[in-house]
Amino acid sequence: MEEKELEKEVLRQYNILKRGCEEIINEAEFKEKLRKSIKTNTPLKVKFGIDPTGSDLHIGHAVPLRKLKQFQDLGHEPIFLIGTFTARIGDPTGKSETRKMLGMDVIEKNIKTYLDQLKLILDIDKLTVRYNHEWLESLNLTDVLNLLSKFTVSQMVAREDFSKRLEAGKPVSLIEFMYPILQGYDSVELNADVELGATEQKFNILRGRDLLKDFDKEPQICMLMPILVGLDGVEKMSKSLGNYIGVKDTPNDMFGKIMSISDDLMFVYYEQITDIPIDEIEEIKKNMHPMEAKKKLAMELIKIYYSEKEALEAREYFENVFSKKNLDVELPEVSISLDEVSIIDLLVTHLNFYKSTSEARRVITQGGFKVNDEAIKDISHVLKLEDGLVIKAGKKNIVRIKK
Amino acid sequence: MEEKELEKEVLRQYNILKRGCEEIINEAEFKEKLRKSIKTNTPLKVKFGIDPTGSDLHIGHAVPLRKLKQFQDLGHEPIFLIGTFTARIGDPTGKSETRKMLGMDVIEKNIKTYLDQLKLILDIDKLTVRYNHEWLESLNLTDVLNLLSKFTVSQMVAREDFSKRLEAGKPVSLIEFMYPILQGYDSVELNADVELGATEQKFNILRGRDLLKDFDKEPQICMLMPILVGLDGVEKMSKSLGNYIGVKDTPNDMFGKIMSISDDLMFVYYEQITDIPIDEIEEIKKNMHPMEAKKKLAMELIKIYYSEKEALEAREYFENVFSKKNLDVELPEVSISLDEVSIIDLLVTHLNFYKSTSEARRVITQGGFKVNDEAIKDISHVLKLEDGLVIKAGKKNIVRIKK
Repeated sequence: MEEKELEKEVLRQYNILKRGCEEIINEAEFKEKLRKSIKTNTPLKVKFGIDPTGSDLHIGHAVPLRKLKQFQDLGHEPIFLIGTFTARIGDPTGKSETRKMLGMDVIEKNIKTYLDQLKLILDIDKLTVRYNHEWLESLNLTDVLNLLSKFTVSQMVAREDFSKRLEAGKPVSLIEFMYPILQGYDSVELNADVELGATEQKFNILRGRDLLKDFDKEPQICMLMPILVGLDGVEKMSKSLGNYIGVKDTPNDMFGKIMSISDDLMFVYYEQITDIPIDEIEEIKKNMHPMEAKKKLAMELIKIYYSEKEALEAREYFENVFSKKNLDVELPEVSISLDEVSIIDLLVTHLNFYKSTSEARRVITQGGFKVNDEAIKDISHVLKLEDGLVIKAGKKNIVRIKK
Repeated sequence: MEEKELEKEVLRQYNILKRGCEEIINEAEFKEKLRKSIKTNTPLKVKFGIDPTGSDLHIGHAVPLRKLKQFQDLGHEPIFLIGTFTARIGDPTGKSETRKMLGMDVIEKNIKTYLDQLKLILDIDKLTVRYNHEWLESLNLTDVLNLLSKFTVSQMVAREDFSKRLEAGKPVSLIEFMYPILQGYDSVELNADVELGATEQKFNILRGRDLLKDFDKEPQICMLMPILVGLDGVEKMSKSLGNYIGVKDTPNDMFGKIMSISDDLMFVYYEQITDIPIDEIEEIKKNMHPMEAKKKLAMELIKIYYSEKEALEAREYFENVFSKKNLDVELPEVSISLDEVSIIDLLVTHLNFYKSTSEARRVITQGGFKVNDEAIKDISHVLKLEDGLVIKAGKKNIVRIKK
């Protein structure tokens, strides 16, 4: 490859890969690594580690995984590292308490579910999957002391979540210091060229960079991705907060959830969860009606996890049910054996649309409860259940009663 | 054994053993351990650990070793633990800097010299000697994590020498946290009933007490001995400060050094380095002339490391040379091939009495240099060396010239 072509290819890969990154430590070294990789036809080893502590992936988790896919598409070698050993410790990052150790049975179940979902994002057949118990289990006390000798107390205590807890007088177990050190040692074992992670992983990923140097190896590039904000536009996306889109959500759910976000958040998502080029996104922002832009975003998302066909169908479903008030579409059907029921009971107990009667009451009084498209606002109303009745509650709950 | 006799024996042992201790944690538990031991005829396991980092024992080191001897004489089982593994880390206690790891060759040489000197104090044939590399070398990462999980950062940082260094912005390596933890784990391996150590070891010895509880074993008693003050009466006794009496010092040196201490320090030494009963010491303090009391102390010390005969000889030597000015005693002889020599050269180069010419000069001008008991104060004097000349310099240097 000629020098000029080489530089062009370096820049092309660099531009693709830096998209959506919050920070790359450091950029010059990263370009140099790409240059050497392309020149010698040696794929970069790109480490991304997870702890098998949970298993339901949402599109926030998918952000770095899709970055990994980009590396894969460019011919590099993503290494998906499963912290089978470190999960026993638990990474305290961002947590305000010492975590419990996990049992091996739970860990194995989580890995299975995790890899199963990974297929939706990466070419799993071409993916190197490693488990860190392979090397960590055989470390002995001398090895551990050698690792510990590379770090000082002040360095560890400087980590934000540690210092905050210490200042608040909350206990930080010594075992927690080991997590970043062992995560760093994984990079030594894997000879990682790049480690990918969320911004909150910066401290840990930098420790890998330190340790590679300590072991006389080329330091890894730290590639830090922002943490995806949840549907509420405020908190980070998380299952426990309920503000998430799961990668296994149905196309209709994905569509509906995207339609519920704010216009500002929509453009954050455009950049972080799709591959649409930045200039095209600018174009959309300027010239497309927000409602239309949001539908396009929803379709792009569904295309990633399903197909173009399913994206179109989800759009049609949404438009039919929620926009055009056309009730001829095929609706989910629910059998209820009762002849009549109080509408609060119906919403909370039988249809499970709401968790509490107070939530249901609010929707009803605000006119959000409709039977055959007519609002019923009386919370004490008792409904006679007949075959074919269409029940709507709020913006996204709709069923047909089957007798 | 009857209940009454048992209690009497418990109290007898307790009173012997508590002598010279600064702190026992805790006393009630210790009595209970003694009671159980006597009742079931099961010797207490008494751990005393050293790091084979140095090898010249002085009578300060001997303080806990003589306590160990008391346990031995009472039928208990002293365990002399050599930190063959932990020496590689180095205990930072009382040090203001991270220590260097020691090589195995140095460690082995030190152990040999150490055990050789130990014979002077303990019955080494009845002594259990253990090396902590035996169990620490086989610890793996999981074991280490388990140990680390028992301690918090705040707990470690609370140790005085750590907190001082951290406050001063000096580095504390993470490896140093391991020392007290591993010292504690040694107690678990040894099932220690008692751990003996200097007061500065309190933090570390308490960690052993913690860990025994964590491992569902009976917590060890912490028996803390004061650190012996050196001959200067100010600093702790240490080889590097030169204020020490080595256990291998000659009887004459021991005698001379004891005679040089202050009257106050003499009674501290009476209590800490001899076995003379406390009431007898009180008697001496009240009724004996200080010079005579000091001579008695010197003899007691020599009796411990040598014999009564050698103690008497040392006393005679001291009295003859330094007190009675009687030169008929057998003096050390020195051959010098020169016919004449400047007296400065004689003292510094040939006799090595002083390290610098300025020191020698001072002694001479002050009249401390004597030939056949006549002072020569002229520093430029050149002495004609003849067989039989007796050279004295200062209070403690005396030789006879042999031609």
